[in-house]
This record gives sequence, structure tokens and C-alpha cells, in this order.
Amino acid sequence: MAANMGSMRILIKGGKVVNDDFTQEADVYIENGIIQQVGKELMIPGGAKVIDATGKLVLPGGIDTSVHMQDSFMNAAIQDDFYSGTKAALMGGTTMVMALVLPEQHCSLLDAYENCRGQADAKACCDYALHVGVTWWGSKVRNEMETLVREHGVNSFQMFMAYKDFMMLRDSELYQAMQTCKDIGAIARVHAENGELVAEVHLESEATHRAVTIANRARCPIYLVNVSSMSAGDMIAAAKMQGKVVHAETTVAHAVLNGMQYYHQDWAHAAAHVIVPPLRIDPNTPGYLMGLLGNDTLSVVASEHRPFSTKQRALGKEDFTKIPHGVAGVQDRMSVIWERGVVTGKMDENRFVAVTSSNAAKIYNLYPRKGRIIPGADADVVVWDPDATRTISVSTQVQGGDFNLYEGLRCHGVPLVTISRGRLVCENGVFMCAEGSGKFYPQRTFPDFLYKKMVQREKVHSLSYHSVTSVLHKSRIKRLKVSSQLKQICQCMRARSVPCCVS
Amino acid sequence: MAANMGSMRILIKGGKVVNDDFTQEADVYIENGIIQQVGKELMIPGGAKVIDATGKLVLPGGIDTSVHMQDSFMNAAIQDDFYSGTKAALMGGTTMVMALVLPEQHCSLLDAYENCRGQADAKACCDYALHVGVTWWGSKVRNEMETLVREHGVNSFQMFMAYKDFMMLRDSELYQAMQTCKDIGAIARVHAENGELVAEVHLESEATHRAVTIANRARCPIYLVNVSSMSAGDMIAAAKMQGKVVHAETTVAHAVLNGMQYYHQDWAHAAAHVIVPPLRIDPNTPGYLMGLLGNDTLSVVASEHRPFSTKQRALGKEDFTKIPHGVAGVQDRMSVIWERGVVTGKMDENRFVAVTSSNAAKIYNLYPRKGRIIPGADADVVVWDPDATRTISVSTQVQGGDFNLYEGLRCHGVPLVTISRGRLVCENGVFMCAEGSGKFYPQRTFPDFLYKKMVQREKVHSLSYHSVTSVLHKSRIKRLKVSSQLKQICQCMRARSVPCCVS
Amino acid sequence: MAANMGSMRILIKGGKVVNDDFTQEADVYIENGIIQQVGKELMIPGGAKVIDATGKLVLPGGIDTSVHMQDSFMNAAIQDDFYSGTKAALMGGTTMVMALVLPEQHCSLLDAYENCRGQADAKACCDYALHVGVTWWGSKVRNEMETLVREHGVNSFQMFMAYKDFMMLRDSELYQAMQTCKDIGAIARVHAENGELVAEVHLESEATHRAVTIANRARCPIYLVNVSSMSAGDMIAAAKMQGKVVHAETTVAHAVLNGMQYYHQDWAHAAAHVIVPPLRIDPNTPGYLMGLLGNDTLSVVASEHRPFSTKQRALGKEDFTKIPHGVAGVQDRMSVIWERGVVTGKMDENRFVAVTSSNAAKIYNLYPRKGRIIPGADADVVVWDPDATRTISVSTQVQGGDFNLYEGLRCHGVPLVTISRGRLVCENGVFMCAEGSGKFYPQRTFPDFLYKKMVQREKVHSLSYHSVTSVLHKSRIKRLKVSSQLKQICQCMRARSVPCCVS
Amino acid sequence: MAANMGSMRILIKGGKVVNDDFTQEADVYIENGIIQQVGKELMIPGGAKVIDATGKLVLPGGIDTSVHMQDSFMNAAIQDDFYSGTKAALMGGTTMVMALVLPEQHCSLLDAYENCRGQADAKACCDYALHVGVTWWGSKVRNEMETLVREHGVNSFQMFMAYKDFMMLRDSELYQAMQTCKDIGAIARVHAENGELVAEVHLESEATHRAVTIANRARCPIYLVNVSSMSAGDMIAAAKMQGKVVHAETTVAHAVLNGMQYYHQDWAHAAAHVIVPPLRIDPNTPGYLMGLLGNDTLSVVASEHRPFSTKQRALGKEDFTKIPHGVAGVQDRMSVIWERGVVTGKMDENRFVAVTSSNAAKIYNLYPRKGRIIPGADADVVVWDPDATRTISVSTQVQGGDFNLYEGLRCHGVPLVTISRGRLVCENGVFMCAEGSGKFYPQRTFPDFLYKKMVQREKVHSLSYHSVTSVLHKSRIKRLKVSSQLKQICQCMRARSVPCCVS
Repeated sequence: MAANMGSMRILIKGGKVVNDDFTQEADVYIENGIIQQVGKELMIPGGAKVIDATGKLVLPGGIDTSVHMQDSFMNAAIQDDFYSGTKAALMGGTTMVMALVLPEQHCSLLDAYENCRGQADAKACCDYALHVGVTWWGSKVRNEMETLVREHGVNSFQMFMAYKDFMMLRDSELYQAMQTCKDIGAIARVHAENGELVAEVHLESEATHRAVTIANRARCPIYLVNVSSMSAGDMIAAAKMQGKVVHAETTVAHAVLNGMQYYHQDWAHAAAHVIVPPLRIDPNTPGYLMGLLGNDTLSVVASEHRPFSTKQRALGKEDFTKIPHGVAGVQDRMSVIWERGVVTGKMDENRFVAVTSSNAAKIYNLYPRKGRIIPGADADVVVWDPDATRTISVSTQVQGGDFNLYEGLRCHGVPLVTISRGRLVCENGVFMCAEGSGKFYPQRTFPDFLYKKMVQREKVHSLSYHSVTSVLHKSRIKRLKVSSQLKQICQCMRARSVPCCVS
Repeated sequence: MAANMGSMRILIKGGKVVNDDFTQEADVYIENGIIQQVGKELMIPGGAKVIDATGKLVLPGGIDTSVHMQDSFMNAAIQDDFYSGTKAALMGGTTMVMALVLPEQHCSLLDAYENCRGQADAKACCDYALHVGVTWWGSKVRNEMETLVREHGVNSFQMFMAYKDFMMLRDSELYQAMQTCKDIGAIARVHAENGELVAEVHLESEATHRAVTIANRARCPIYLVNVSSMSAGDMIAAAKMQGKVVHAETTVAHAVLNGMQYYHQDWAHAAAHVIVPPLRIDPNTPGYLMGLLGNDTLSVVASEHRPFSTKQRALGKEDFTKIPHGVAGVQDRMSVIWERGVVTGKMDENRFVAVTSSNAAKIYNLYPRKGRIIPGADADVVVWDPDATRTISVSTQVQGGDFNLYEGLRCHGVPLVTISRGRLVCENGVFMCAEGSGKFYPQRTFPDFLYKKMVQREKVHSLSYHSVTSVLHKSRIKRLKVSSQLKQICQCMRARSVPCCVS
Repeated sequence: MAANMGSMRILIKGGKVVNDDFTQEADVYIENGIIQQVGKELMIPGGAKVIDATGKLVLPGGIDTSVHMQDSFMNAAIQDDFYSGTKAALMGGTTMVMALVLPEQHCSLLDAYENCRGQADAKACCDYALHVGVTWWGSKVRNEMETLVREHGVNSFQMFMAYKDFMMLRDSELYQAMQTCKDIGAIARVHAENGELVAEVHLESEATHRAVTIANRARCPIYLVNVSSMSAGDMIAAAKMQGKVVHAETTVAHAVLNGMQYYHQDWAHAAAHVIVPPLRIDPNTPGYLMGLLGNDTLSVVASEHRPFSTKQRALGKEDFTKIPHGVAGVQDRMSVIWERGVVTGKMDENRFVAVTSSNAAKIYNLYPRKGRIIPGADADVVVWDPDATRTISVSTQVQGGDFNLYEGLRCHGVPLVTISRGRLVCENGVFMCAEGSGKFYPQRTFPDFLYKKMVQREKVHSLSYHSVTSVLHKSRIKRLKVSSQLKQICQCMRARSVPCCVS
Repeated sequence: MAANMGSMRILIKGGKVVNDDFTQEADVYIENGIIQQVGKELMIPGGAKVIDATGKLVLPGGIDTSVHMQDSFMNAAIQDDFYSGTKAALMGGTTMVMALVLPEQHCSLLDAYENCRGQADAKACCDYALHVGVTWWGSKVRNEMETLVREHGVNSFQMFMAYKDFMMLRDSELYQAMQTCKDIGAIARVHAENGELVAEVHLESEATHRAVTIANRARCPIYLVNVSSMSAGDMIAAAKMQGKVVHAETTVAHAVLNGMQYYHQDWAHAAAHVIVPPLRIDPNTPGYLMGLLGNDTLSVVASEHRPFSTKQRALGKEDFTKIPHGVAGVQDRMSVIWERGVVTGKMDENRFVAVTSSNAAKIYNLYPRKGRIIPGADADVVVWDPDATRTISVSTQVQGGDFNLYEGLRCHGVPLVTISRGRLVCENGVFMCAEGSGKFYPQRTFPDFLYKKMVQREKVHSLSYHSVTSVLHKSRIKRLKVSSQLKQICQCMRARSVPCCVS
């Protein structure tokens, strides 16, 4: 049936197509899993299923860059496998997920990857990709990173500056991991908290600064995950102002909720909000982070989906450190961001597409096959009703867990139809997609979006004054014996110090 | 002949199409002045002229948002009319220009516009649009702004905080002009310098801050022109961080040259660099501004083309204030920005397209008909050779004036072919386009890129807590007689402000 | 009797003397209105009145740099004359006040000054000085500024960027006023709000930026008054980081209260908080401003005392703009700042002395005769009990008005004894000082604290590269005809651009 | 003879006494090593040596907070012992030095201290104190820190974030060292560079941020040493703006020279500039740092004196990492800072006294016995000629080493007379002081200047809302079982956080 659906012909008529750069009234014709035509008065063969999108928006399917499914964490089994998890994603308008593989320390990255692939291939309903955690360091790790990139369709790795004695890399290891990423053209995802110390607001900002600094030295683009505080956001903005290649992801929970939840009189309620970094007490934080999504300081908002049950969390009732970290959200991400981002005027519909889909596609080198509605792209499409409302509730959710962070929130944006690779998988709340019909989506290295500038800079630097100074700086004084060649450079530099002064 | 050319069929084969979001290998087929197809293995009718773009880039034609042609300024006739000026533009890879109409004080905006239209329609070789200067204030001006917008295809106005007793608006007038812009959906272009005082670096930053503040109060998007200093750039970045709708334009000269030029021993050389604001003495400024173009703090780079001759400038030999302000650059803009922006790694080719074309199209509501290579767009296309080099010289320039700011600069990016509305107007340095074959391009109001968020915010504000406080703030104490509804809000708010509220 | 008191001999024993740089256990001996000795085991003549200060602090008397007494404003008579006002000051631990003389527009500054002197001399109980408002501009004003400085002991002028059509100076007038201040060595007090527009938070920051910019151009130190918003505070911090000579004053009300007061259901309560700029709605503002007092971004906290009665404010009941602006506070200033600044740990006792007394003395060129407890200084001394508490209430206040902003606030710092010029004027709440026994305190120009750096910089600039560029900048291109002299400078500059590169 | 000199009576007549808060014309009378009187027309016993200071300044003797004498570093013996080193200090106007004791890793701090004391007591010519390096961590170190503070007059410890595998502490160790400092009231000196990576400009800023963050968590005041980059300076300014108790020291070399020296064609010249952190290539850096000294972002400028010979440095000729780090400067510090700081207008004479003497005295709890000219203070006094000039040269220097960084610099400020503890030790270039006549100056803990605010804050925090949240934060979720008391607070807080709290 999945095969059949792939060859289904669908015409979405009368809607407004929303890409990250503009909105246009256009019909969309899909065949063979591909968007074939976008425009008005299309010439299409007969027999296509017609979806009336009058008054609706037609969006690129969401890409959720950070989910955890069918795995265990902190000794608790995650309450979603790749079937229920991707089903929830699709019901919420997300058509691709990226899950994180976390190898145990000193264990093979490759084995962990293979193991996860096995589970996911059997279950997933939509396209998926895998990040692999670099939870320890050594030459074996470096080699496996290369293998994963060259042979297994992985193009992103995640490093932790937190979780000491468990997953944390030291600065010098982080530096080497980043150098490796850069050499093989991978995306370096970094979870920045100071793992040497107990966590606190300002420690995220400290670690963010450190991570950006180390990445800069390794000449590696950096992608920060789980940005949760205003000061970390400011740090990222500052790095961008300096021209550094920095991108960052926050989560729905951090962009919407604050840490007052931890004071709730119901222990189960409070415990259900345990994530890392924790929600911030300062009530201005969520609005600030949403604003950063709006002004392009933050590029991506993920669900960081990792549902547990109240019972599982109760293991930490006597010792809160035993509460497994994680919240659910893969199903609610799109609607909640629409409600709190678009309805409030912090972003427009185009920016919404950017932070929920297109930017992820650009960063992970999927664009424009994913993240854009144009002819030739994968037919991952959502018909979105900006006027309908839906009230979020655990009682109606598909995703795992028995608690919903946004219980009772009335959202204006509602996904009416979800199409995954040309297959109509969800319509008006009815799900119709076979387990395992989703596919691993191999990813390519050296995304232009991150690397083009970096590569050019390296080229220029190797010819310029800056390279001389940085060489010198690196080696501090290595070149104090000034060769005749250096002498020439010096003369040149002196000349350049009045660069525009016509002699 | 122009008509003929419009119906010409052109196939650009083998190149890489560069839009602001990604680059793809694709052929481009043009017919009837429109891009018909973009892709590989296109099915096209026979008889099309084929342009081999192997190893070349195919870019959206440049849009130069600030030029001055066929007019006089400071008692000197500009050394280009719309024919020579747009010819130079096309030779340099720019396919649309926006010229500024400057009415005399107390004169009709409409008359000035009509007069300029008459000159331009007879001469222009490419699409053009007009900004109209709001050089004085009154109800007549407001009415004419409306008329220009509704009936004459104008959607942008330029206000000056400098040029006291000549074009400058006071703060309260600027506020009213911006309110008018917002009401009619126009773009408010603001030249920010402190006109009450003699110009200096920091005064630009002061006026920028003031302009942004006033725009924010008027709930009007703002577009700053001629950004020339690092501190003004920082001010703009700060405003964006706060979520304000602010866009900004710099000029090629400011992003490439510094004020050491004014020390040149040859008076004519120094005088040829007289622009407003002046080039900055600090040698870091140009690189910093180019960096801001790279990191999206600045959105657009214009030529601010207004050529004069050495002889004209000599009028100011005894009194420098008599030197007519203006530099040439409409022809060199694309190549110089490529050389100093892309070759240095400060931006990639996609960002180059953004700052020379797409962003202007988005801001001025032309997108995606202009600024993007997609089917359905106007066929304004440039074939660009990133490897060829061309040395800039006054001796070979088409643009007016007898001095070139970039004399001797060897640029790597060279426009090989320019296509304007489907007409092959320039190929390998040969120009073939009739005088007056260009057209006025009427512009539409309320560009989504500027207004969508603003409109939504107004809607939300009128319902929210913020509106209450802002109303109160506006009127300071107007509403001290608290109605019962307000009383409820107050109690809630008082609860929230506990610490300082001595009840 | 005043004369007698002046010759009183007083020994303050056993206390801790607090200056702005350190605290020491020491006795203080006073005679002839002067502090004669500070130390332990002093040798003093018999017959002195001994005050036991064991466990208490001995502070320099407060200096309140901004009060309004015996005048009318907005058609309402201020509810304090110089007798009741200075009595309240002394009861609260303040031993010197600076009142603002506000000439009507186009009226003589000198006349206004003389008039105020007449009233004050007859009534004041403590030392006082006068700022004179520059409420309009013209050569007569400039001349009178000089006369006031040379012959009448005035060294500070206040300019308004707000109060359009009433007291506001335009930018170019402000520039001239500042140039005059600088030429005659006076302190330029500037009230920074954008008077062209209705007031709002960000407009203070805008005007602050503008004021600092103009002062910088005029090479005049600047002193900003009534700093009330976080963004204005940030602006001041930024200016200081750039090395500009900027000082700033906030008021007790702004550093303690927020604008939620305006929502109070009792109109009279709300109206009693009407000051300019208004209290800020953001509840973080007061704490932030107090922090800026703590970290030396703000130097002085004044009361901006100008009490009106509820009945007077009721004139604005139908039209809030008619509510006379002003709050009471000269009596409460010291205690409230102690409670909210020292008790909270935002400043220590030394910094408390700095912001309530010593900094004012330094800025207004009174130091160390005022603002410091050392031999030779005026005997303006307060014995302060840091452990006692006092609850503020309108029912017990001496100052004018029938409302107290801090009603019910329990303050830990209490002035037990106030000594003014060696006279014991207040002890344990008993006031014993004759009307008119206070004196006008003539002030000297060119305070080192503001001017020493400025003067040296001018000297250096006139010799340096910077002067060349600034001359050029000022005149833009004046000197394009490069004389042989300039040529030499150029060569020198080129050489200097690699300043440390040993050739 | 030393004893005799101590009882010498000296009258400095006719000079201007410069303290950090003001300048006054006053005579200074010294007896028994103590300043007895400061003022005009002093009554003094006969027989005093009179020094005519007409037209001269009388300054508190300099305090050099960072010198290295009679020790070896990187296998090279420092080219000064405590005799020649303190002699050079006195000749340059510095009357107290603080030397750094650097224990080997895993060796006793106490032993290293005792050893240094032995050498110094026998040789020093002026008062000195000792910082002790915490070059490793363990309970023994903590215990010895306590012993040093309680029994040996040490109140400052230095920790290194650089020098990996040699002296560097990890973050968690640094945290514990700072907690210890705070518990015992010591000053935590931190050398902030990222020791995990090779050094570079931005790594100082990263480590500075990290150090400030860790100190904040440990509630320990922090004192950063060797601040060398603009970004580190900005970081410190930001921390101060946030109210943190942060102080910082730079060195003369960093505030005057830039890294272009490393390009010198003479290897020996270049190598002579090897210090850590290295001089910065950016030519704006020294001026920026001097500006930060001027605006109170940086508090202290030390010499970081550690002279080596050209021959010693030649050991690194083949491997630059073997060049022993260190420059000479104890003799030149005062004159060079005067020339580049005061003469340029970046600071006035009072600020000069602050950064060369008073601030150090305040921070290290010596004030006002040191760092101020008042009766009762130690008679460490310099008569300074602001108009005389002296050209610095290795050929005339007393300090060790065979190279002078400021060779040929003509300084305007010249110390004419140096008085150490009442002894006339240097007059017109003649040195007259016995080896070993200087003394160890035991230091007291809990300096008010650093600790008063900290202590008050702790007190307040333990009572306040913030403590609740910080407790919660620290323990993340520890207190989820909400007690009835907490419940009340919670309800109140929840009311205040309305928007995001989905109850």
C-alpha cells in the first residue's frame, strides 16, 4: 500500500503556498512522491485526488531536528517507538524527524547506529535521519565518524559539554571532534552547559561562549542545541555579528514555558517539566527566545521529544536527580509555535516555515528537496488552517507519555492534511500510513549553507596577512627568525596599513 | 526592435543558477520576457538562442536601489541621463534601477514625479522605479503621497534628517511622514544624520537611533539609507535584536573605501570622494560594513550613483562646501562587491544575490518577479564569470564622470551577458539596446516583507495588556480614573509587581 | 544664635567614620563650623558637647542636587519654601541642597536668580546652591551665563530637551549652550527626553544618546539628570566605556518605584506619582537603576523634590496633562536609598556616601570641603544608625505635601543627629535651627573632576593626528588643497599607522 | 642605618598632594616612618630635612602588584633578586611590591612561601607582600591556604587557567579554590586563558567569562590578572554592569605595546617581548586597555616584572616554546603609564594614583595605610615632576635584564624623590638604602573593598525569594515536594507569571 500511495496523484487546489521567502496563491500537483508543479491553472492528468485548500496555507512539511524514540535514557524506556513517534509527528504536520543515537561511553558509534537503524527502519512512518552522539573521544571514534559519514548517510554529530562522567567531552576533546567534523564536512551539534559545575543560568552562556570559541579555532561551523537562556541567545547574536558561522536550535518548551512550573504543588506536574537545561525561572525568557527565532538569531526550533510516564518519573520522587529528563512535543511543535510565534506577531508565516522546516533543510543539506515547495522537491506537504483552532490535551494526543506540557492551550494553526513523500498520510485527524513505510534519508556532507563561506575564508587566509599573524599566534614566536620571505610580507603589511592611501 | 527582443527565445545552458537561498545546476529558458523554465534537460521549442554558461553562474539581475540620473544637484548637472546611466547599469549586471525624485521645498511632489517620468520614459534602457523625496511637510505633501501611491506606482519615500534648511524634516514632521507611510503601506527611506549640527561620525549613529525610535512610535517599518559608520551599523543590529522592523542600505563606496582618500595630495582625487555621509577615517569601517552585509544586519548595497565631473567639483575649490556631493558607481557595483565581499569570504554567492538583488526585490514588493530566477519571473538575468577578471578604469567605463573610485581594482566577478526582460542587451561587452526601451515599473504597497509582522502586531496589541500600558504611557496618566474592567487588570498586575508597590 | 551655634564645639565619639573610600573607627571634633580633627584619642579643649556614636556611623551630610522650593510650576505653588524644605532636608540627614531656578522664556536669567536668592537667603536653614535653567537661547542668555558664573557663584546650568514650546532647546541651541558651559567651566545639566514627540521609554534613551553626542562635539562634560530607564542607563555606560566625560543623576523615586502605581484604583494615589520622566512600567527598572548607582554608572541620586498637594493635582482630574509634575522626597532620600541600596547589598556604606554626598561634591567642585569627613572640611555631618528602623509616613513628615510615596516603608538607616556647618541642628528628631540661618554657597568653575581630562585632551588633540582628521571632518573637505605642511603630517601619519613596528 | 632613617624627619614643602580623589596644595610632614601632617602652614619641630616640591606633585608611592624576583621560571633564573628588584622599584617611584610564590605541583605551599620569605627578608629594600600560587588542588592545599592566611600574613592566591599539566586548575578545582578563598576572606587572583587549547586572542575572553561565572557561583570576589585583550576587557565591563564583584589588573606592556614587535627582523628584539598572554597584534589594543584603566573597568596596572637575559631567551632560538616568558618593567611602570595615560588625557593625575597605588591598596586591604597621603599613613611618598622628562634606556636602568621594552621613550613624569616608610631612599637618581632594610608586610583578610557587598548579599539572599529559586535551581528539582509555606510563595509567583503557566 505504501508503494501505491507513493504513486498517488494529488492536486492541492486554491491554497496559498508558503515558502520561507514568500507566499503565493498557487495549486500544487504531486505525483510519484514528488512535487511536480506549483502554479495556477496547472495542466494535469485526470484522476488526481483533489484537496480543496481554499483559505488554507500549504506549507513544507515540518522537520523536527531533535527527537528521541525507541531507546532508553536514565534507565527508563522512552514512551514512543519509531512508529508511534513518527505517527504523532505526521499528525502534527511534521514529515521528517532526526533522532539522536547515543552510544554508551567507549562503545562503538557504528554499532549504536546500526542498532538504531534496525529499529527505525522497521517502524518509521516518515523520512528520518540520525545524528550520532560523540560521547567519548579517541582515534576509534574519529575513524567511525568518517565511516558513518562516507558510508552510512550520517552528516551530523552531537557533542556534550554537560553530563560529566557520562557523555561530556573536555575542551581539548571537543576541539578535536570539531576538527574532525570540519575535515569530513559534518555538522557539529553542541549541547553547551558547563559540565564541571552544577547547572545554572549563566553557565549555559559560559559554555556557549566556550563552544563558539573552540569552533572558531577549529575553523568549524557550529550548531548549538537546546539554547534555553537569554544570555546564551545574546552570546549567539554577538558571534554572528562578528561574522562567525554559528547556528542554533531551541526547543518548543524553552520558547514557550518558564521554570515557575517547578513550583507547582502537584509533584507530578512539576516533575513532568524536567528537561536539560531546565526551564528558566525568569518569566521573560520564553518570549525572548521566541523573539530570537523571529529575528534570525536562532534558526531552528525542535521538540527535543523524549516522553516518559509519570510513573517513570516517580522513580525520582525521593531523589530528583533520578527523574529521567525529557518532555513530549513532536506532535504539538508546529501548532504551539504558530500560536505563540505567528499569532503574537513575533514572526510571520514565512519565518514560521523557516524555523520549523526550511532552515533545518538548509543546515542539514536537504534543501531544496526538503523545506521548500517547488517542482522537483519531495512531496512533504502540509495543508494548514490558520483560522481553525484546536485545544491541546493529553487525552487526545497520539504521542507517548501521559502528560502534555501545553494542556488546554487553544492553538489557531491546525494541520488538516499531511502528505509524506506524496502519500496522503493524515487527513482531518485520520491517520492512514503503514508501520515501516518511512525511510532513512541519507545525508550529504559539506552543506553549502554552513561551509561555503568557511572554505572561501580558509583559501583567502592562506594567502593573507591574517594567516601570517595567526600562524605566528598559534606558534606564538615560532617564526621570530625572520626569513627574507617574511621580511617581504612585513613590508607589504606596513604598506597595507594605510590600505586606501594612494601613494 | 525592443518588441522583437522581448519575444526572443533564449536558453542559458550548463550554468549554475544562484538564488539567495541555494545554488543549483540548471538551464534557464526564457521567452516573452519571462523565465519559462529552470531545470535540467528542458523541453524547449527550437530556434532559441543558446548561451553556453558552462562554468559560469546565472544570477538574478542586480537591482540598484539608489541612483540619480538626469537631474541636477547643488547646481551641477548630473553626468548621466537615464540612457547612459541605465546602459552603464546593464553593462555592469544591474537590470533595474530606482532613482530618487527630489522636489524643491514647498513644490509639488507630483509635478516633480511627472517631470522625472517624462525624462526617464524617453531614455531608460531597463526597468526603473522612482522614490520620491519628502523634502518638506504639510497636508499637501501628505495628500500627494497618497496620490502617488494610489495612482502612480510609487511605494517609497525618502526623508532627510540632514540638509537643514533645504530638505531636512524635524522630528515631529518625520513622525508624521512615517505615520503617513504606514497608513498607505509605503516604504519609509530615511537618511539619518543630525542636520542640526555639522556632520561627524557619531552623529550618524545618533540620528539612526532617533529615526528608529520615531519609526517605532509611528509603528512604521523603517529603511535606513547610506549607512556609513560602524556605530550606526551596531545601532541597527541592536534594533533588530529587539524585534523592530528595520532594514538598511549602505553604498559600495562606504563598504569599500575609507576617508584617507581625503588626504590625497591631488585635490581632484580627494574631491572626487565627496559623498554624504563622508567616507569614514577609521580604516576598519569598510570591512565592518561589508561584514554587516554578510551577516544580514545590512540588507542592501546600492551605488548611490550621482556622477559629476572634475570641473564641476572644481567649483568648490575655494569653498569645499560648494563641491557637489556624489560619486559614480552604478556600473561597478556588482563586480566590486563580488571582489570585496565574496572573494574575501565575507559572504557567499547566495548572500551576494541577496544584497545586490533579492532583498531589494523583497523590500520593494517586487519579489519574486524580480530578484529570483524561477519560472514566471521577469527575465532579468546575468551570466556571471566568477573566475574571469576585469580591471576597473575610468578609461573604459560607460557611466558618467571622469573619475573612477576603484581605478585599477582587479575584480574577479565579471558579467558576461545581461538579459533585461528577456532581451539580450549586453554580451561580452557589446551593448545592444535602444534608448527608451526600458519601462517604468509600478510598485505595489504593503510589502509583506515589511508589513506582515507589523499588521499582526497591531492586531494583537489592540487586545493585550501591552496596549493598556502603551495607551497609558502615551497619555501618561489619561486613564487614571480606572474603569471596573481596568481595575481587574490592575489588581492582577499589582499582584505581579509586588516588590515596589507600597499599597 | 546661628553665629553661636557656628562656634559650638562638638565631639562625636566612638563611631565609625564613613567616607566614600573607606570606613574607620574614629572620633570627630568640630569647632567653628569646621571639622578640626578625625582620629582616635584626640586632644581637644574642654567644654565640647559630646555625642556618643558608639555602634553608629558618622557620614558626610547628604547633598541633594535637585530640589525645588518656594516657587511655582505648572501654575501650582510648591508646597515647601526654603524654610520647610531645608528643615525637612536636615531632618533626613541632608545638609546641602541645590535648587533649580527656572526663568520664564525670554526673561532674564539674572533676574530669576536674584529673585530666588532673595527668597532663599531669608529662609534656608542649611547651605544651598543654585542651578539656573537655560530655558531659551540667545546672546543675552550667553552673556548672563557668564555673569552668573563670574559674579554670582553659579557653576551649573540646566537645559531641557523636553517641554517643547516652554523650556526645550533645539539641538543646535543645546550645542551652543554646551559650548558656553565649556568655555566658562560650568556644569551642563541636561534633562534628556525627546520633546518633539510624546514621551515614551525609548525616547529617553534616544535623547540621552543625542545629548551625549552633542556634548562630545562641544567638548563639554555632560551631566544627565532624572535618568529613569534601563536603556538610558545602558547608553550612559556605553559612553563611559568610550571614555567620554559623562555623569548622571537619577532620583529616589525612579530608583525605587515603578509605573504600576499609575494603575492604582485611587486616582489621588496614582496622580501623586506624576513626575517627568514617568515611572517606568517595567518592574525591573528600579532595581536596575539602583544597581547602576552601585556600579558607578550613575553617580548621584537626588530627590527631585517638588511637592504638591492632592488638591493641586486634582486640577488635572479631567485633563491629566494639567496635573503639576512633582513628588516629595528631600526628607526621605537618605533613608530610602539606604534601605533599598545598602540593605539589599547593591552598594556598601561607602558607595552610599558617594551617591548621596561625595560625588555631588566632586562634580560641583565642593570637594573635599563638602562630601568628606576630614580635618578642614565643613562640619556637615550626620550620625547614622544602621540598625534602628523608622517607618516612613506622611503623618510624621516635615516636608511639604500630603502624600508620601514610601508610606509604610520601614527603613533601617536612621539619621540620629544632623550637624550643619558645625551647628547641631537636629538631634533625635528635634529640630533646632533658625529660619534663614543657612547660606548661599558660591560655587567655583572648572571642577577638576569633570574638566581635568577634557583640558588635557584638548591640548593633546591640538597637536595630533586626531586634530587633523577632525578639522578635516568638521570642514569635510576644507583642506583638500594639501599644503606642504599637511603633506608632512600625512607622511607622519602613514608612518604612525604601524605605530610599534620598529623600522 | 635603616633604623635611623626610619626616624628621619622630612618636610615636603610647596607641592601638590595628589590622592585618588583630589589634588590639594599642601605640605607633608613625615616622622617615624609615618605621615604626621598634611596641610599648609604646618607646625613642625625643627631639624627636619626639607624637600622643596614647588611645582611638583606629591604622590603615594606606587604599589606594584605583580613582580617576580629571585626565582627561576622555565629553567631560567630571573635576572633580579629582591635587592636589585626592589631597588629598581624605588628608583621608579614604587614603594611596595607583591611577588608571586609559585610552588611546584604537589609541593607544599607553605614551604614555597617560607623559602621565598627567607630570600626576600634578607634582600628587600621596600615593603613587600606575597601572593601564593595555587598550582594544584587537594585538601592539603586548602589547609595550607588557611594556614598561610591565619598565621603568615598572606591574603591572596593566584590560580591559573592556562599552563596545562603544569599549573592549570580545572573548572571544578578552580571552583573549590574560590570557595576556599571566600571562606577565608582571601583575594582570588585568576590568570584566565583557555589552557586546554593553544592560546589565541579570543581564548582569553572565553576564559575570563568562565572565571567570572565560576566566581559568581562560588560567591567569591574575583581579581583577574594580565588582562591583555579588548574582548576580555569588554567581558569585565559587562560583569561589572551586572553588579558582580570583579576587579582586574593589566600590565604596562599590554597597555602600551602591541604584537607587531614579534615581526621585528632582529630575533632578540622580538623574543624580548615574549610574555603571557602575548601582546596582541591588533594595534588598537594598547590604547583600548589604557582607556579601560582610565574609565575604571581595569583597576590596577602592574609591571609583571620578570626579567631574563637575551642569552637566556636564546635557549628558545630553535624552539620558541622554550623562550622563558617574562619582561622587565618594575622600574619603568610609573613613568610609562604617566606618559601614555596622563599625558594623552586618558586619565588625570588622580586616576593615575588610583591605578598605580590606591586601588591596589584598597583591594589588598592596605588602605589607607598605603595608597593615600594622609596623616597616619605609612610614609611611602614620591615627589613627581610632571614637566621633567627622562628617556628610558637599558643603558641606564637599574632593573635586571639587558633589554628595555620602552627603549628611547621620552617620558614626562619623573620621580625626583622616593621615600619608603619615612626613609629617603632615592633622591635625584641617587639610591641610598641598605639591602634587607625592607620588610614583609603582613596582610589582613576580608578586605571591605571586595567583601562588604558580598557578605551583605549573602545575608539578604538567605531571606529572599531569590534564595528560593536559587536553591531550587541548584538542586534543580530537589524541592518539588512543596511544603505549605512554599505553596503560598508559589501561588503568588504563579499569579505573577501568568502568560506561560498552563495550570
